[in-house]
Amino acid sequence: MKKLLFHVLCCTQLPLFAQTAPDVNLTQYVKPIIGTQKMGHTYPGATVPFGMVQLSPETDTIPYEMNGKYNPDVYKYCAGYQYDDKTITGFSHTHFSGTGHSDLGDFLIMPTTGALQLNPGTATQPESGYRSTFSHATEVAEPDYYKVKLDEYNIQAELTASNRVGFHQYTFPQTDQAHIILDLMAGIYNYENKNVWTFVRVENDTLVTGFRQTNGWGRTRIVYFAMSFSKPFYRYGHKNYAHDVYRGFYGKFDQAHNFPEMGGRQIRAYFDFKTTAGEKIKIKFALSPVSTAGALNNLRTEIPHWDFDKVKQDGQALWNKELQKIAIKATSPDEMLNFYTAMYHAFLSPTTYMDADGGYRGLDQNNHVAKGFTNYTTFSLWDTYRALHPLFNIIQPKRNADMIQSMLAHYDQSVHKMLPVWSHYANENWCMTGYHSVSVIADAVIKGNAPFDVDHALEACVNTARYKLYDGIEYYMQYGYVPEDKNSSSVSKTLEYAYDDWCIAQMAKKLNRTDIYNEFIQRAANFKHVYDAGTGFMRPKMSDGSFRKQFDALTTINQGFIEGNAWNYSLYVPQAPAEMIQMMGGQERFVQHLDSLFTMHLPDEFFAETEDITRDGIIGNYVHGNEPSHHVAYLYNWTHAPWKTQERVRMILKKMYKPAPDGLGGNDDCGQMSAWYIFTTLGFYPVCPGSDQYALGSPAMEHASLQLENGKTFIIDTKGQSDTNVYVQKVVLNGRTLTQPFITHQDIMNGGQLTFYMGAKPAKKNYQ
Amino acid sequence: MKKLLFHVLCCTQLPLFAQTAPDVNLTQYVKPIIGTQKMGHTYPGATVPFGMVQLSPETDTIPYEMNGKYNPDVYKYCAGYQYDDKTITGFSHTHFSGTGHSDLGDFLIMPTTGALQLNPGTATQPESGYRSTFSHATEVAEPDYYKVKLDEYNIQAELTASNRVGFHQYTFPQTDQAHIILDLMAGIYNYENKNVWTFVRVENDTLVTGFRQTNGWGRTRIVYFAMSFSKPFYRYGHKNYAHDVYRGFYGKFDQAHNFPEMGGRQIRAYFDFKTTAGEKIKIKFALSPVSTAGALNNLRTEIPHWDFDKVKQDGQALWNKELQKIAIKATSPDEMLNFYTAMYHAFLSPTTYMDADGGYRGLDQNNHVAKGFTNYTTFSLWDTYRALHPLFNIIQPKRNADMIQSMLAHYDQSVHKMLPVWSHYANENWCMTGYHSVSVIADAVIKGNAPFDVDHALEACVNTARYKLYDGIEYYMQYGYVPEDKNSSSVSKTLEYAYDDWCIAQMAKKLNRTDIYNEFIQRAANFKHVYDAGTGFMRPKMSDGSFRKQFDALTTINQGFIEGNAWNYSLYVPQAPAEMIQMMGGQERFVQHLDSLFTMHLPDEFFAETEDITRDGIIGNYVHGNEPSHHVAYLYNWTHAPWKTQERVRMILKKMYKPAPDGLGGNDDCGQMSAWYIFTTLGFYPVCPGSDQYALGSPAMEHASLQLENGKTFIIDTKGQSDTNVYVQKVVLNGRTLTQPFITHQDIMNGGQLTFYMGAKPAKKNYQ
Repeated sequence: MKKLLFHVLCCTQLPLFAQTAPDVNLTQYVKPIIGTQKMGHTYPGATVPFGMVQLSPETDTIPYEMNGKYNPDVYKYCAGYQYDDKTITGFSHTHFSGTGHSDLGDFLIMPTTGALQLNPGTATQPESGYRSTFSHATEVAEPDYYKVKLDEYNIQAELTASNRVGFHQYTFPQTDQAHIILDLMAGIYNYENKNVWTFVRVENDTLVTGFRQTNGWGRTRIVYFAMSFSKPFYRYGHKNYAHDVYRGFYGKFDQAHNFPEMGGRQIRAYFDFKTTAGEKIKIKFALSPVSTAGALNNLRTEIPHWDFDKVKQDGQALWNKELQKIAIKATSPDEMLNFYTAMYHAFLSPTTYMDADGGYRGLDQNNHVAKGFTNYTTFSLWDTYRALHPLFNIIQPKRNADMIQSMLAHYDQSVHKMLPVWSHYANENWCMTGYHSVSVIADAVIKGNAPFDVDHALEACVNTARYKLYDGIEYYMQYGYVPEDKNSSSVSKTLEYAYDDWCIAQMAKKLNRTDIYNEFIQRAANFKHVYDAGTGFMRPKMSDGSFRKQFDALTTINQGFIEGNAWNYSLYVPQAPAEMIQMMGGQERFVQHLDSLFTMHLPDEFFAETEDITRDGIIGNYVHGNEPSHHVAYLYNWTHAPWKTQERVRMILKKMYKPAPDGLGGNDDCGQMSAWYIFTTLGFYPVCPGSDQYALGSPAMEHASLQLENGKTFIIDTKGQSDTNVYVQKVVLNGRTLTQPFITHQDIMNGGQLTFYMGAKPAKKNYQ
Repeated sequence: MKKLLFHVLCCTQLPLFAQTAPDVNLTQYVKPIIGTQKMGHTYPGATVPFGMVQLSPETDTIPYEMNGKYNPDVYKYCAGYQYDDKTITGFSHTHFSGTGHSDLGDFLIMPTTGALQLNPGTATQPESGYRSTFSHATEVAEPDYYKVKLDEYNIQAELTASNRVGFHQYTFPQTDQAHIILDLMAGIYNYENKNVWTFVRVENDTLVTGFRQTNGWGRTRIVYFAMSFSKPFYRYGHKNYAHDVYRGFYGKFDQAHNFPEMGGRQIRAYFDFKTTAGEKIKIKFALSPVSTAGALNNLRTEIPHWDFDKVKQDGQALWNKELQKIAIKATSPDEMLNFYTAMYHAFLSPTTYMDADGGYRGLDQNNHVAKGFTNYTTFSLWDTYRALHPLFNIIQPKRNADMIQSMLAHYDQSVHKMLPVWSHYANENWCMTGYHSVSVIADAVIKGNAPFDVDHALEACVNTARYKLYDGIEYYMQYGYVPEDKNSSSVSKTLEYAYDDWCIAQMAKKLNRTDIYNEFIQRAANFKHVYDAGTGFMRPKMSDGSFRKQFDALTTINQGFIEGNAWNYSLYVPQAPAEMIQMMGGQERFVQHLDSLFTMHLPDEFFAETEDITRDGIIGNYVHGNEPSHHVAYLYNWTHAPWKTQERVRMILKKMYKPAPDGLGGNDDCGQMSAWYIFTTLGFYPVCPGSDQYALGSPAMEHASLQLENGKTFIIDTKGQSDTNVYVQKVVLNGRTLTQPFITHQDIMNGGQLTFYMGAKPAKKNYQ
């Protein structure tokens, strides 16, 4: 494994710096294989920045349910691929990056030879089905390019993609029995009844269209496709595995063979060819949220040719352009790989959810046309409001504004009149807690990146925050906190609502809506209602005003928290750290408390509860693999010991991010983990999105140059930085020495130079 | 029953004539209840001419399958209503008229009071569910108006409709427990897995939207709706009866009560009200083939008010306008009722399948916009090409041309590149045999009613007729007939293909396409290949050229025929009756043969095989309830004995059509049976659509005036006509005495006067 790993990750000597000159190819530093082992839940396949198509291998067929019960093994397959697996079942077109629950895996394509097998077979007996063994030795994963040898069939598979079109290139051996299988039953987090309906039309001997409709994480979800072959198939057919499908007068046909219209719940189709040795069969596979006509238009608009290499080159050029938005000079090869792979992972989602002509499916299941913005989906907002969207406000402001437009469209189409919580593919999946769309919107408004109807946006935020049916809001509004006897995870919800409410208040203030400001700034203080001075922790409170008796600050189960225990979650008051510190006994006591978090030993029994992180994903009791702690290491900045922030964040960088398949300490969560890495490497972090403030940490590179969309450049330099010189001695912004460990958004957007002077020992008095 | 019948049908003394003056209300002669008992398969509910909405009661919940097997009891419920039933389960919005297989029954609404019951209950124990007993004594069925008392709940239900919007008016008693149930599980020809998906949004307290997607006769079918209440409901909810639905993070909500977004496979929703005595709750329920947005636009465009009576009056005015296209003076009240109810049934389908803005779903499952035509669906072409579409070419030419445009759009969207066989709601259901679209198109082209791209239409006909995958065409093209060992019902198919081919040839000739003419005029002679001179019948032939040994001319089962036996089907050469008669031994022998058909006794064992007709539906061995015989009585016109045509058709009119719930001798088949009645009553019939010729029979009225769309009037008068004076003595067309028992389409469209002189005895030499 080590050797293979070297092959995948370190096949060339890479320079340790990047420049913004277009001739520097930053894609060389991106290793999509990072995070594909264990809990990273990333995928290694081909996609362009924020692309609609994520064309990537699947390595098994674990179902979401077994005998009607949740199958915990499915969790490893949130992105379809697990590095330890020995087989590939095929290549499908939609994948989440780094999520902790899943869906998608639409339209699995598998090339095979020999006797036709339409079932995937098993991992232990790959020869029992169409899947193939493979080896990492033959595997190449680059931005927008994936290559692997399918050993079973001696077929070389290559994948690339444009925004809406996946491009497959399969190099066959000489055979009279070459097959391309299109498996419409396959999917991620699949189960027997997940397919609602599938439909396939063989338009002619090189063109196939259709759709797949599912009931999964996205409850009422449909994806359309158009599939074009570079060579005519001479025969085709399908099998419908559903026994319950009414077949009616279709019975007069032999539907299994060469019948051009397939419809049913469980369909696997095949297309047959005869190939010469080394012959390439190429497939362009376009998606659409609207219709097969939309998919076909996407296909013809985006890739009107059969030049695989051009699509790959175009895709890699797109990546290079995005990666160049931050050019860094690192101190080690690992940091270059980590950084640009983090940039890559940060630019995977939200994903484009709109046809080339602007059409998209709305939350109301009607088709809409996006006017004046690109419509996006895959909003993992509980994760991404923290650092990913703030990062976008710096280096992807245009896209971030479009994402907000997409969220407002979601609001307009919502029967609940709510902004998205966790949404994908015209569905609200309601995953996780809070209403963090408001944080994303407020952050953009406060930072001046709001080219949309801000009054309408404020209305959307307010209505969302007042929607009583949602997750205890009714009680939250009544009691000033979510009572645990009324709604579970009550402390997490109270703390997150209070933060979100603060965001709404800031936005209302900027828009001169005093009434709304007053309402929500009051709600923003609700965090105080769940603080138990007796234990020093946030603690579940009952509707009668008493704290729940049963309480364990270490466990995450049924303690009023979600994805975190009281130790971690009690620190979640990003809107008022100083006030929180005061509430918790003042700076001295708080620093001790925070130190304990990082140094205590979390017994195995408690670790076992945390589903989605590896043991490496925690430091003491600090759980970096789950998001509620992401701002925690920066909280020392509000005490007399900012040097402890510097120390901790460098340790976290080292421990949690490695350029290896198992290099991510937890789910990448649609780029949030990567965004944390990027900010922290650059030396600052948005502890409180919705404010214009960034907390300074300890930059982990020599030099960084941020190319801003406003044409300006923000440069971060370090002097004397090294793995041991992690302590900031002095920070100079455009010639001015900073007296506080903070900078503002405007400081960055104005362009300029931030220089950190580093040393091996804490400079305990530096920011004074 | 007799007494009730009198109430429904004969409550007023009706005059025996109609005039075209707008103040004569011809709707009074229409009794939608005719055909609702036994095998007529008509529905009594509310609809406008060719309307998208057919809002009508359902009287039971018979499933299509029981334990995975076809349940023959379902057949009675093709239109949802059976006159003999004692309960009503509710009122749904889509119904076929007169079909012999079924689908639809979408969106069942039921008003109830008292404790909420969400299941329909059983016919024997109606109190076990939401259904109600009812009595025909309280029932009123008029064009676009239906009324009934729901005895169980003391609710008066009234229904009317515009083209795309059903309008319900329910008069409640005083109650705090008034419910409107919306059952998305209900349907016609329903079975457990028929629902693919359903989706409902409670937009506000008076507006609900959603869709129902099914897998039935229409394999991939979806209908959208928008539902508006005249009064806000104060509470609502639903139950999802599917246990297999992934519920995901929706579990955080109480979805059953007041949760505004419902999704699942098996949903029943309810909406609660408090009512005062006599309070009316009204519902406007719009459909769309495209989207809920389309449905909502239809709702607001067509009925922007809450005046039930106005919608009813508007709908009845539309009916009156259509009925006035033929004003007759009858000789008895029964004939008036029969005639105008036949006109009503003839004008129910094809149905509008297009939103107010022109949007419709195409066969390719994409949304399209109809440009320059109204898009129609429900093409029961095996039935309706015979007389219904020819009737439309006379009195509905504009609509008929639009129907053909719709068929051409179907062709353009067809992956098979075929015109419709039997299509409904963006689906080809492949029911029955032949490719009779070509007959409908050729008939319009030959008769000069072709305001569409005729060259494209010819291409569509030719491609359809050459599509080898379809129902033995490959063999038909190879052998000149369909061999019974290759494809069942081979004789029916051979005869129908040959006729259809003749139609294509005629069209090609008119368009100067000699190549196509030559190909298809040759195919048109293929009927000769299945004629067995030895038995005097058409007979199944094997691929080796021999007739199949096993042969029984009386049975309909496995003898090479569909919906007919050799006795009936052997006479199916409408394109060449004279040649057929010659082939069958000449006129003398043929007249004897035909006489035998009408006079022989069909033993019960053979009758039992015919599923969809009553014993009254046959005369001897002549089966009027099935369409292949519809031209047969007119074949005497090609012999020396046209008087026998006159005698037979009058007998058929009397026996097969009665103004009673059980008054139709077989399925009305989307108006084909009714169109036969109309033509035959008027004294002529299109034996061979695709020619411009009509065979004369024996008019069964005193006077008829046809108001043509070209502004002209064609008048048919009879002199001395009576139930006994059925024999034509002389026919005069515009002063010219006819020497042949035929007139042409142009004779009619030119306007003018046709006078039949009738007598009590055959005038054996009249047409000479």
